[in-house]
This record gives sequence, structure tokens and C-alpha cells, in this order.
Amino acid sequence: MKTVLLIGALGKMGQAALTGLGKHKIISAGRSGAVDHIVDITSEASIRALFEKVGHFDALVNTVGACEYAHFSDMTEAQWMKTVMSKMMGQINLVRIGQDYIADHGSFTLISGIFNVKPIPFAIADATTSGAIDTFVKCVSLEMPRNTRINVVNPTVLAEAWDVYGDMMPGFEPVPSTLVGKAFERSVDGFINGEVLFVDA
Amino acid sequence: MKTVLLIGALGKMGQAALTGLGKHKIISAGRSGAVDHIVDITSEASIRALFEKVGHFDALVNTVGACEYAHFSDMTEAQWMKTVMSKMMGQINLVRIGQDYIADHGSFTLISGIFNVKPIPFAIADATTSGAIDTFVKCVSLEMPRNTRINVVNPTVLAEAWDVYGDMMPGFEPVPSTLVGKAFERSVDGFINGEVLFVDA
Repeated sequence: MKTVLLIGALGKMGQAALTGLGKHKIISAGRSGAVDHIVDITSEASIRALFEKVGHFDALVNTVGACEYAHFSDMTEAQWMKTVMSKMMGQINLVRIGQDYIADHGSFTLISGIFNVKPIPFAIADATTSGAIDTFVKCVSLEMPRNTRINVVNPTVLAEAWDVYGDMMPGFEPVPSTLVGKAFERSVDGFINGEVLFVDA
Repeated sequence: MKTVLLIGALGKMGQAALTGLGKHKIISAGRSGAVDHIVDITSEASIRALFEKVGHFDALVNTVGACEYAHFSDMTEAQWMKTVMSKMMGQINLVRIGQDYIADHGSFTLISGIFNVKPIPFAIADATTSGAIDTFVKCVSLEMPRNTRINVVNPTVLAEAWDVYGDMMPGFEPVPSTLVGKAFERSVDGFINGEVLFVDA
């Protein structure tokens, strides 16, 4: 049994990750709600405070990254920066700061999303930052300290979120949360490193 | 003959691009020195002022993007943000603002760099933002207005810069500036769109 720090535990993606983490002790974190710890991943201070409070953990699983959606011609600098500072720099900072706290042989698992390889209108900032995170994980895996590992799950839309996103994703096939959970499980319980785990149908 | 706005004209990569743009009218821009227009791509106001001064142009070729280099464990938030705001958001903002000024059927050509597919130590921020720009170009090409196009040149190290970078790039083979110039030429004078033009040996 490992101690897994799950960020975004109450969200749909957090719940999907949970389906693959049943054998572990879960420490839940999120921006609000009934979680063990409150954290805002866009704040370095909040991230550092989280790790100080949590103490020992073997794996960090992040399932959050806020994105703004608009046509490229309409998207403002502020919308770009909100996406960059959450989905991209928020996750990079979780690893950058977390590398000083995670246990030897631990693992980081981040989240990106399918729009960087299957673009749709409105999703340019999501796609761009997903491409950044997929690249970050592949490259930084070569310099992780103390035998720690890092992977990223890149899922298509969840079946459980299809009612919200289906209209903007014509021709996409949703996947069940349990299949996405398997990808998180493969990252946390396997020995893979630097991989982008696509979960698509 | 097209009017090409070349940003970073005095740098080594700008000079490489120039070797492929010989048949065009060049308007040069850069942060300093003997260029037609001074511009700082990390400033929205500076970018907008550039386009207002330049007036008509058929192609924008950008060859600049400042990056910080350090081991991931040593790289600070400030170093990350300097890279993100120049190589990534600087280039995105050139396109975001420039789409209102570029001529119909015009083209944007951005710059990334080989470290996102051939990682080396110290280059994690360069690699991550190069991955972001390669992804951005592939995805945003599908929503460019008025038949404008966008591509990105992703070169390995220039032969002309090997004396500076060779020691940190063991096993890499530099390419001549003229070969990189061909990639810029293929983007500006061709009809390709959404392509990452790798120039590697």
C-alpha cells in the first residue's frame, strides 16, 4: 500500500483516478469541499504549504488544471494566462516543489487532455498547455531525483462528462472513468517513466 | 515579391532565415541594434505598436524566444516564467495580435527548437515551451482567418553557433544556416499550413 496524494479528488477526473487507486491510502486535496487539504495549484505558497502539511507520500496524482475556452481570435491575454498558470505552470510547480518532498522511488502523475492531438474549436489554450505538459513529462523524466518517476494521463472525454462536453466534441467517443482509472493505476503501480498515457476510444 | 516582417533579424537564427528570404522585401525588427523597428515580444503594447508602424505585410517570420537554462531541480519560478513569457506567450501574442494586421493569404512562421524531441540537461524550459509552440501551431492552423497560414521551424543547432552550444550537445550534428533558411522559405513561399518543419541532421 502506498500513500497517494490526490489533487482534485472531488472532480470527475479525480473520481476517475480514484477507481484505479483502491489499494492505496488516499490523502485528498482540492480547491474546496470535503477534502483532507485545501490547495490552489496556481500558488507556489499554497503548494508548498500542502506538502508541509501532508508529510510523507509515495505518489502525487494531479487531476486539475483550469482552462479557458474561446475561439483563438476571441481569446484574450488574460484567458491565455489563466490557462497557462493553472494547467501548465501549476502542474510544473507541483513537480518542481514536490520533488523535495516525495518519497524515494515515488511517482508523479499529471493530467493533460486529448485536444493537443485531436483539436476542436475553442480549445486552443487547453491544447497548447496539454502539449506543453506532455513534452515536459517526457523530457523531465530523464532528470528526476532519487529514482522518482513521472507520467501524464492524456484522456479523451469521460462518459460521465459527456452530457456537458458532448455537444462541442462531435465524432468523439467518450471513455468510462474506470478505463482512465487504469491509466493512473499503471502510472502509480508500474515502473514506467516519462510516458504519455493516452486513454482514447 | 512579398513583404516579410522578420523579427530577430540580427541574431544567428534571423540571419539563417534571411538566407531563404532573398527574393522578398524584408522589414527587420529586433530588441536592439540596426533594425527597421525595435520590438520586445514579451510586451503586448510593443507588439501592437510594431504592427501599427509596419502597416502592410504578407508574412511574419519570428526567430526570437528567450530561454533560461538550468537543471530542473535548480530552475526557479522566475526562470520558468521568463521562458514562458518570451518563447511561448511572446510568439502566441505575435500571432494573436498579428492576425488583425497580416494581409489576406499571409503566413506566420514561428521558431521552436529540437530539445522537445531530443532532450538534453539544462533545457527543460526550452523543451517544454517548444512543445507548446509546436502544438499551438498544429492546432491553431485550423482556425486562422482570411486564408492565412502558420508553421513553425524546429531546428537543431546551427553550424554557426556550434562553438557556443556544442559542448552542451554531445552527439548532435549541427546544420548549416542555409538549410534552416530553406525551411523558412518553404513556409513563406509554400502553401503548407500547421506544419512543424524539423531541420535536423
